[in-house]
Amino acid sequence: MNKIQPFVTLVGAGPGDPDLITLKGVKAIACADVILYDALVNDALLSYARPNCTKVYVGKRAERLSTSQDYINRLMVDYALTHGHVVRLKGGDSFVFGRGGEELDYVHGFGIPTAVIPGISSAIGLTGIQKIPLTYRGVSESFWVITGSKSDGSLSSDLQLAVGTDATIVVLMGYGKLREIVSLYEASGKSTLPIAVIQNGSLATERVVLGTISSIVEAVECSGVGVPAIIVIGEVVSKHAAFSRIRNEIHYLQV
Amino acid sequence: MNKIQPFVTLVGAGPGDPDLITLKGVKAIACADVILYDALVNDALLSYARPNCTKVYVGKRAERLSTSQDYINRLMVDYALTHGHVVRLKGGDSFVFGRGGEELDYVHGFGIPTAVIPGISSAIGLTGIQKIPLTYRGVSESFWVITGSKSDGSLSSDLQLAVGTDATIVVLMGYGKLREIVSLYEASGKSTLPIAVIQNGSLATERVVLGTISSIVEAVECSGVGVPAIIVIGEVVSKHAAFSRIRNEIHYLQV
Repeated sequence: MNKIQPFVTLVGAGPGDPDLITLKGVKAIACADVILYDALVNDALLSYARPNCTKVYVGKRAERLSTSQDYINRLMVDYALTHGHVVRLKGGDSFVFGRGGEELDYVHGFGIPTAVIPGISSAIGLTGIQKIPLTYRGVSESFWVITGSKSDGSLSSDLQLAVGTDATIVVLMGYGKLREIVSLYEASGKSTLPIAVIQNGSLATERVVLGTISSIVEAVECSGVGVPAIIVIGEVVSKHAAFSRIRNEIHYLQV
Repeated sequence: MNKIQPFVTLVGAGPGDPDLITLKGVKAIACADVILYDALVNDALLSYARPNCTKVYVGKRAERLSTSQDYINRLMVDYALTHGHVVRLKGGDSFVFGRGGEELDYVHGFGIPTAVIPGISSAIGLTGIQKIPLTYRGVSESFWVITGSKSDGSLSSDLQLAVGTDATIVVLMGYGKLREIVSLYEASGKSTLPIAVIQNGSLATERVVLGTISSIVEAVECSGVGVPAIIVIGEVVSKHAAFSRIRNEIHYLQV
């Protein structure tokens, strides 16, 4: 009997489309003894696993908001010690609001070695697929990725600072805070700034709503777009192919 | 003879390791008629191309700083019109300081359809491989990616704002500005803030230098680390496995 070699690899599964995982991510899945996977991970990725791989769903369930982080941490360690190579497969990238850092800290506490395979974060991937460039010479020389959902329910203070900059702002998990975010920008006199909300990005069900700060709440309500969604704010949003129509409508209203 | 169908796909090749491209990126390379590729693209990726694919290097050459963007734009359009499917293969992600937006604008001006396949940006991927989490509950609730190299040679004004926030800051193409960046942080009283410089991330030649704002310039000089490199600044850098040693040294010096 082979001695078990405990090992944990955090793998970013990308933003939804199963073809947006990396080759390295697929190779890790293919040699995993156990896979712990999240709600936003595409099931198709599990088909790369060996037949005898143990696959454990640890994402959101109907009866509870989510599997607790403590429980996931313990599962990683238990499975590594009893089965060997655990792949922790997470939507997007493990370190972009993915709590990957906490998971590594816990696993390292047991002396278990780890590796990290990055994934396409929705912040970069989903804006890219919509052809909204996060940076553009003369328009935006930086982008700032912020969570809309702090653990205490409040709006991130970083968002309040972000409003005062020319950086492209990407808000993840911020759909429920859209009105608050809009209010911040309006209070800074930025009501004409372009903004996009992208739901189910990279999947067949992808939808995008474009607008300005002053029009986006109504546009989102009319469209019926919901979660999971990312929000992109900045002049670069006007580079979206469909944005000129909105500019024209605004122009028309102003005339 | 088949009619030529001009098409341009921007593909992010990832940060260096050829296994850090996406499956979708590989599929695009495999059906390309022409590939225009950059200096930071791993040659191994070209092996996915069909035997009759035309591969054109448009990156930095010894005799000039880089192939001009205008020339690359024209090449994309010429090849699309004469050969069909052009894959523009770029290091990292096309829209993270990759001038992908400008390239799309140019190509669209000729009525040529396009697609974008995102890539792992070095900002997210290389920090991840070093197990530096860009976000971490209670430490950092956002990250801000900024270019260190504006076209006019000046330091981005976004960097000056970034110093005042608690966001994790990632500076791409900022190696040559390290002293200026350090001065900004020191002027803000942040000389003990952790900082990392990662060279050749994800490759066999990868090197990382860790320090604090006050120690990093000397540490980088001693190490001989050079370009291409990314800079990461923020408390999350202290999560790096080797950082405690540095903390201890600082402690020792203070005693």
